[in-house]
Amino acid sequence: MNDLKYFLQNNSSKKIIVIQGLGFVGSVMSLVCANAINGDYAIIGIDLPTKRGKSMINSLNNGIFPLVADDPKIEEFFLNTIKKNNFIATTETESYKFADIVIVDINLDVEKNNDYSGELIDYNVNLDSFKKAITTIGENCKQDALILIESTIPPGTCKNIVKPIINNCLNKRKLSSDKIKIGHSYERVMPGPGYIDSIQNFFRVYSGVDEKSADAVESFLHTIIRTDEYPLTRLGNTNATEIAKVLENSYRAMNIAFAVEWSRFAEEAGVNLYEVVDAIRLRPTHANLMYPGIGVGGYCLTKDALLASWSRQNLIGGNKPLSQSESAININDQMPRFTFEFIKNRYPELKGVKILLLGVSYRGDVGDTRCSPVEMLFNYLVETGSTVSCHDPYVKYWDEQSLNIDQDLSTHLNQSLDIIILSTGHSIYKQDKTVDKIYNLEPLLIFDTIGHLSNKQINRLKKKHTVKVLGRGDI
Amino acid sequence: MNDLKYFLQNNSSKKIIVIQGLGFVGSVMSLVCANAINGDYAIIGIDLPTKRGKSMINSLNNGIFPLVADDPKIEEFFLNTIKKNNFIATTETESYKFADIVIVDINLDVEKNNDYSGELIDYNVNLDSFKKAITTIGENCKQDALILIESTIPPGTCKNIVKPIINNCLNKRKLSSDKIKIGHSYERVMPGPGYIDSIQNFFRVYSGVDEKSADAVESFLHTIIRTDEYPLTRLGNTNATEIAKVLENSYRAMNIAFAVEWSRFAEEAGVNLYEVVDAIRLRPTHANLMYPGIGVGGYCLTKDALLASWSRQNLIGGNKPLSQSESAININDQMPRFTFEFIKNRYPELKGVKILLLGVSYRGDVGDTRCSPVEMLFNYLVETGSTVSCHDPYVKYWDEQSLNIDQDLSTHLNQSLDIIILSTGHSIYKQDKTVDKIYNLEPLLIFDTIGHLSNKQINRLKKKHTVKVLGRGDI
Repeated sequence: MNDLKYFLQNNSSKKIIVIQGLGFVGSVMSLVCANAINGDYAIIGIDLPTKRGKSMINSLNNGIFPLVADDPKIEEFFLNTIKKNNFIATTETESYKFADIVIVDINLDVEKNNDYSGELIDYNVNLDSFKKAITTIGENCKQDALILIESTIPPGTCKNIVKPIINNCLNKRKLSSDKIKIGHSYERVMPGPGYIDSIQNFFRVYSGVDEKSADAVESFLHTIIRTDEYPLTRLGNTNATEIAKVLENSYRAMNIAFAVEWSRFAEEAGVNLYEVVDAIRLRPTHANLMYPGIGVGGYCLTKDALLASWSRQNLIGGNKPLSQSESAININDQMPRFTFEFIKNRYPELKGVKILLLGVSYRGDVGDTRCSPVEMLFNYLVETGSTVSCHDPYVKYWDEQSLNIDQDLSTHLNQSLDIIILSTGHSIYKQDKTVDKIYNLEPLLIFDTIGHLSNKQINRLKKKHTVKVLGRGDI
Repeated sequence: MNDLKYFLQNNSSKKIIVIQGLGFVGSVMSLVCANAINGDYAIIGIDLPTKRGKSMINSLNNGIFPLVADDPKIEEFFLNTIKKNNFIATTETESYKFADIVIVDINLDVEKNNDYSGELIDYNVNLDSFKKAITTIGENCKQDALILIESTIPPGTCKNIVKPIINNCLNKRKLSSDKIKIGHSYERVMPGPGYIDSIQNFFRVYSGVDEKSADAVESFLHTIIRTDEYPLTRLGNTNATEIAKVLENSYRAMNIAFAVEWSRFAEEAGVNLYEVVDAIRLRPTHANLMYPGIGVGGYCLTKDALLASWSRQNLIGGNKPLSQSESAININDQMPRFTFEFIKNRYPELKGVKILLLGVSYRGDVGDTRCSPVEMLFNYLVETGSTVSCHDPYVKYWDEQSLNIDQDLSTHLNQSLDIIILSTGHSIYKQDKTVDKIYNLEPLLIFDTIGHLSNKQINRLKKKHTVKVLGRGDI
């Protein structure tokens, strides 16, 4: 608490922003607020006193940014923050007392129940820990604070859950609930090379539970986002912005599911789906058709459609599911299994087969392994008794598998191998020097599950190896 | 036959193109070929000796273009064709004898079985009449003709059906099948203001059953399409182009189905989905999100996904449906019912209620009523005993309903009315003078099923009338 006291003294002239949750959004949001383009804030980042929370906090307070991503602005912003001494991380919930603005960046998980093949059996949304987090704010916050929810939540949450909790807490504290401001503005954070820009230089949609709340959110967003280039959009109520967020991600998930089903058809028909998609993308109305791949990963696309469908059935809707969106999640969840089956068809006996996975995170040039489809494929392969080694330049320690990853690609390629699976679109894997190294290996099966290799690279590799690209029925 | 003889004599220096099928594609394709930008062709358009076929042929040969659309180029191209005397329409199948190029623009229907609510129970694809049409070509064509299929067909059809039929016919005629060229290049014809441009100034994808066929298609397309601005794309085989076409339209149908489901959720949650979609469309990856509407119409989007799914199950695939695409058709087919239910909720007793439908075609500023969703709504309403009148500036005679349509909007608006349903996005309906006329009526319910009115118009009308926009939960 002493550290916090000194921090507040040092930053006494500044508005205080408390950011709840220091994960992939909150930690980078902290940097963006600490380097506000049009304001001077002191940031207190709060996380839970869990092992992971404390590790994040220690790391941040010791000048080591805890997330690995290929965005030089992260380093720049973090160094600047250290220099200005306007960012501290803590587990102290009393920090909310000092906040002019509280930003909620905690996770709200969907409990999914998939069977062995990946098929989605059922799912549930448990709001308990979210409610608890909001209660902690209500028990401590100033009565005129702005509480800005950035978390992805089931539509209806701000109005039907957050507002009643906060009002109730304030009333218990004998404070008026007239002055509190509660708003919603979802982030569109994309870990990767444009991590900071995905907040600072991108469009934002916002709303408030009332007019004064929406106004307060608007004023704040102008101070951290380049709204001259990326104008803000105010929607009519918090249900609308909450729906917008999950609709965006459901749409994306559905587009992927669409590509998945058609890629299977293409395989069967001897058609190169990449070529087909490229041809169709020339139409502006179809420019965002997607390629097939190994699966869908990340924290959002694998669940947001379910948050929406759950809300429609349990919170504010007409008690029906969003069938098209739910089915998208179901199709996508089975993608790793399809990839596995493909390998198994070629190698009916996988025991002892030596396999190298190139990439374990869910996205190219990012170390984010949350809900990575590679994990399911890895599990399937390991279960067969095959020997699986993993490389990923962005992941030293694979959390979900408790696995240390040797980051020297050469070591991996120098071992004896039967199959190389290109599983994540990291740039390094399509560099010609990497392809050269692979070319020089003893003949093996190269399985590009994400269409990462160029035609030229494929043709070269095929002179010596067997090359298969998922969704290219012609090879 | 005499007419044809003189026609051929008059055009003896020209290459002959025979176009099979004079519907929405073939008739306009005839104009584009007759006005080739880079070639000199004489066009023989062939249709069946049915009532409709003969009526089209008579109309074309008498200088009256049989399709109504808001594209001035149609008139210009048609007049030019008459002047050049290089286009004749006929039922004579012997015409194929003279063809250097045969273009197949006939329909291949899906037999859909929907229940009363619109739900898709099952469907079938019957290739008999298509096979018969191809056989007629094979029985007559030159052995070195180019047969170019533009019809939308189940993937696999060119290779597995057209080629064997043609080869078989040629062999029966003791001709070699070595020189025949069979290609596929799907049209992206869009009836409406850019009707001609949707052929002449648009991207094309093509293929051939072999290299020489693909080459021949390419050479031909260069003569009718502005390929400098809209480069051609050659795909690896005919399965690929056939898949590309139905994939395009399945994608579109799925995007619409997505908007439908979310619009229902938005209604329930008191959210204006138009506002949400506008906010999301700012993201380039989401720029083609669609608005909800009364339903999906037209010849393509209502069936192409089923052609694909049928092919996957019966022609060249792995015996599985394309579930996401089939479900899109199913959701879309139920949209008119949803619109009807909405009205019925407001007017539990519709008997005697006087309703005006503004627009019966499936698309704004086009007279195409094929598979129009307005038809189902019309049927539902008529069944309740309500009095339904219809206006459409582009439809004088509603074929599917055998209904003459009074095209004077004032007459319709001068009758006593309880409900006006905006059912097609014709420009005239959003002109202020139309809105003025509606404003001046006695108070009634105005139901905009397609988001056609502007916010300003809605606010004005609401001062006197009840206005409801489908997908805007806020009004």
